Amino acid sequence: MGGGSKGKGMPRAMTPVEEVDISAVRYEPQAMQAPHLTGFGLRAFVWLMESRLLGPLVTSALKKQNNMTQMLQNTVIPERPMYYPEFPPQEPEQGVVVVAEDRDPVDRVEEAVQCLTPYDPSTRFTSADEKNPFLYWKIRDFAYAYRSGITTPSAVAEHVIAGVEEWNNKKPAMPMLVYFNADDLRKQADASAKRFEQGNPISVLDGIFFAIKDDIDCFPYPSKSATTFFDKIRLIEKDAVCVARLRKCGVIFIGKANMHELGLGVTGNNANYGTARNPHSIDRYTGGSSSGPAALVSSGLCSAAIGTDGGGSVRIPSSLCGIVGLKTTYGRTDLTGVLCDAGTVEVASPLTASVEDSMLVYSAVAGSRSTDKITLRPSPLSVPNLVSSDNSDILQSVKVGKYTEWFHDVSDSEISNTCEDALNLLCSTFGCQIEEIILPELEEMRTAHVVSIGSEALCDLNAHYQEGIRTELTFDTRASLALFGSFTSTDYVASQRLRRRIMYYHMEAFKKVDVIATPTTGMTAPKIPPSALKIGESDYVVSGKGLRQSLAVQKLIGV
Amino acid sequence: MGGGSKGKGMPRAMTPVEEVDISAVRYEPQAMQAPHLTGFGLRAFVWLMESRLLGPLVTSALKKQNNMTQMLQNTVIPERPMYYPEFPPQEPEQGVVVVAEDRDPVDRVEEAVQCLTPYDPSTRFTSADEKNPFLYWKIRDFAYAYRSGITTPSAVAEHVIAGVEEWNNKKPAMPMLVYFNADDLRKQADASAKRFEQGNPISVLDGIFFAIKDDIDCFPYPSKSATTFFDKIRLIEKDAVCVARLRKCGVIFIGKANMHELGLGVTGNNANYGTARNPHSIDRYTGGSSSGPAALVSSGLCSAAIGTDGGGSVRIPSSLCGIVGLKTTYGRTDLTGVLCDAGTVEVASPLTASVEDSMLVYSAVAGSRSTDKITLRPSPLSVPNLVSSDNSDILQSVKVGKYTEWFHDVSDSEISNTCEDALNLLCSTFGCQIEEIILPELEEMRTAHVVSIGSEALCDLNAHYQEGIRTELTFDTRASLALFGSFTSTDYVASQRLRRRIMYYHMEAFKKVDVIATPTTGMTAPKIPPSALKIGESDYVVSGKGLRQSLAVQKLIGV
Repeated sequence: MGGGSKGKGMPRAMTPVEEVDISAVRYEPQAMQAPHLTGFGLRAFVWLMESRLLGPLVTSALKKQNNMTQMLQNTVIPERPMYYPEFPPQEPEQGVVVVAEDRDPVDRVEEAVQCLTPYDPSTRFTSADEKNPFLYWKIRDFAYAYRSGITTPSAVAEHVIAGVEEWNNKKPAMPMLVYFNADDLRKQADASAKRFEQGNPISVLDGIFFAIKDDIDCFPYPSKSATTFFDKIRLIEKDAVCVARLRKCGVIFIGKANMHELGLGVTGNNANYGTARNPHSIDRYTGGSSSGPAALVSSGLCSAAIGTDGGGSVRIPSSLCGIVGLKTTYGRTDLTGVLCDAGTVEVASPLTASVEDSMLVYSAVAGSRSTDKITLRPSPLSVPNLVSSDNSDILQSVKVGKYTEWFHDVSDSEISNTCEDALNLLCSTFGCQIEEIILPELEEMRTAHVVSIGSEALCDLNAHYQEGIRTELTFDTRASLALFGSFTSTDYVASQRLRRRIMYYHMEAFKKVDVIATPTTGMTAPKIPPSALKIGESDYVVSGKGLRQSLAVQKLIGV
Repeated sequence: MGGGSKGKGMPRAMTPVEEVDISAVRYEPQAMQAPHLTGFGLRAFVWLMESRLLGPLVTSALKKQNNMTQMLQNTVIPERPMYYPEFPPQEPEQGVVVVAEDRDPVDRVEEAVQCLTPYDPSTRFTSADEKNPFLYWKIRDFAYAYRSGITTPSAVAEHVIAGVEEWNNKKPAMPMLVYFNADDLRKQADASAKRFEQGNPISVLDGIFFAIKDDIDCFPYPSKSATTFFDKIRLIEKDAVCVARLRKCGVIFIGKANMHELGLGVTGNNANYGTARNPHSIDRYTGGSSSGPAALVSSGLCSAAIGTDGGGSVRIPSSLCGIVGLKTTYGRTDLTGVLCDAGTVEVASPLTASVEDSMLVYSAVAGSRSTDKITLRPSPLSVPNLVSSDNSDILQSVKVGKYTEWFHDVSDSEISNTCEDALNLLCSTFGCQIEEIILPELEEMRTAHVVSIGSEALCDLNAHYQEGIRTELTFDTRASLALFGSFTSTDYVASQRLRRRIMYYHMEAFKKVDVIATPTTGMTAPKIPPSALKIGESDYVVSGKGLRQSLAVQKLIGV
């Protein structure tokens, strides 16, 4: 922890954040301690945690072992709470184009396309892969192919339908989607194809195949958040705002993608529908909670997906599946129609096969809701102008922040070494500089993050939970909710005080550097224990230490 | 509650706030139910509440009886949380002068003076009251008297010193101040007197006597919040920002005023220092928590005081003592150096003998902190221009909102009838109109308020509380903290969802009316049970129903 004192008979008091000597802070990672449970062990553990008599003892022991709420309750934190990520007004960056929020999504996407280097079809359309004709095509590859008659949305639809079936037929099954309707997909594709026939496509996204995570409303499909019952609670009458914006651009929705139940875990294990496994190695997890979206993009079945990220849920599976996962700025996208729309850390954001595609999708879905415009006022979305002649100058002046000890705090040094090589290559190619930084109190922030997201998630469900849906949830989810239910209101408020501290530390770091580089996750895709496929798995250790605590920290500050 | 449904096997769901038919909402007050305890009964009750084994049962029963957290946990609240009072940008009003925050307090006060009708000394200085020469003098009376040589700050200081002693010598004692230093007071007064001698007073506030509530830092006096020990935890190195602003204007601080311990109650009962009783009827309470400030102004010993208000703590004692208590807009005054500076409902604001004086004091202390300027952005302080010729036109166009059933939900109809007469007189004199309004979900809001302020207060104290200060607190405070400690993190988040609803209802009301009128409290000053003076008193019923639930509601929305 960055400074602090504890006199005789006095509780530990944190040094006011502005007086902390950041340069003197030492990196002190704590190993996460919790039982790793599958099958019957998990079932018994959940029964214990939910017991009125023994539950408080179990949750209390678990929290004590990990220095969680004891830390929150026994420490004087001098800062005021910060309940939402609050940014001071930001300076406009160099070499970017502001994509104005109040414009039509179609216009915004067009503006983003203008910022890309001119499209060159020769790299894509040289040789045909018969088995996987559309594998890893970028959005502009499809756009070109539709416009030049190389293929049609209807033809691609048949390929998608066959592909989904093929994955479903694997043993064990690998359901990347929890809702899929081939007829509906054909209908959307035919409508798009017709627009191309008539020479009247809507945008570069017309006819592009997207998957939507099952916690985001996509009318008329049900929204179950990969539970067995949530569609009975959450009645869908229209698209979520981000989905409506994509639909306006002509996007085709292939269905609702599988996920960690209710988003409450980062493996992607799902005992209700089966686990969407890693397309690159099907005995391994995709990571989660956006497991289906990552598997679908990574398998090449669709170009992009919209997931939700409240603690790494887009970035983790993207990283473990080798695709691009973007966690966008908190509040810059309207979450209306998304399950976690009341949270203080979540976003709905793109998973794509390339950075370029992320930029296009983000341009379509961006736009704050009106209440956030009043209070959060996130700076407007800006995209890099890749055709500008100033880019090499700008890249040369970029300073990349690296917290070396944190960077290398991973389960296998091969991970961080590979990342380091990539970072060094980036710097030697473009001339940008690496600057050493320190981010204090990362362990405290992990606790603050779990308390925040857990309390907000349980609050969303609480009324139904009290009315008896508890037993309809997976054991993994029930273990999480039992832990969240043990947090007190002062734990929550104290966590928001810590949020103000970590925001300060990041703002200090960003005075020195333009960007902070870390490995996305601290481990590679874990193997799925065979016993975990049926009853599920609860692995706080994978969730905590393994899948990189850095992600949680960044969520609290909303970047 | 404003709309709501509960299907079979489904929890009760509130109607989305924008769809509630406000005109159809019925007023449904709930009587607060809790034991009224003093002496040994209170001691035993606290022992029960704090017991590890029985405590949860007692707090749970108490909350259940009052439909508190069960309501929060069993109701689907569709709105997102609103953690701080969030105002949409406001239109400038007619006939006001904006007192710019970034100016020096001395200049701001001068600007406010210019808005008052010209001073006429003849009304004050006609006859002399030998016993109480300065009784209920307004600020401008002192200012005139100092400038014209009628009296000096040093002469007034001697009067204050004698008066404080006189009240302290009553049986039982009536300590309006918990810290008083006659030498320091004389020193400040002599310095002010010298400025007048030299013809160089700082402002209209120079030489004006103020009391500061004991939860606001006033260097070098200790800040104990009327506990026995808090100065050991809270070391004072400088004035709170609001005190520093007053000091800059030449104000004289007579000491630290008594209060309900830690501000956690509304009677003003204080077993540590004795209870500051009502100067108008010394067997009755002042109300609280700003008991000392109200008693000091009401007894005529000082012109003004700064209190804190998080649920009526300025307005209640002002009302019960017959003075003016202003609860200012949340965030418009910098709370740095105030005990409750981390809360989402509290303000530091003036208690004075007249509305005119409130305006002068508010002009001196206003000014947001820099972080609030970024996020809350309260509209700047504006004061009415009382010398403008347009005022009668403006007053004629004012619409006064009245929720008649709520207005009359008081312990004795004499209270509301008197208020009604006053309101009617106001309207017949100035031509303003009364409009009927409805504010739904007032009971839910009372719960949301208690959960918010209680959780935030306990979070402030928690580390010390865990380390053993608990037994140094009064039984009354311990009972409150035991209740607050039983709130869960989802109770807190759900309360913030309710805050968004009540904010909406108030914004709807303010579309129809300019101001809402209610009695300040629902009862007159209660008699003090003799047994309550020694061990203290816990009276949730007085706190809740008796002292007007309206106040809590208004705190959540920050007005």
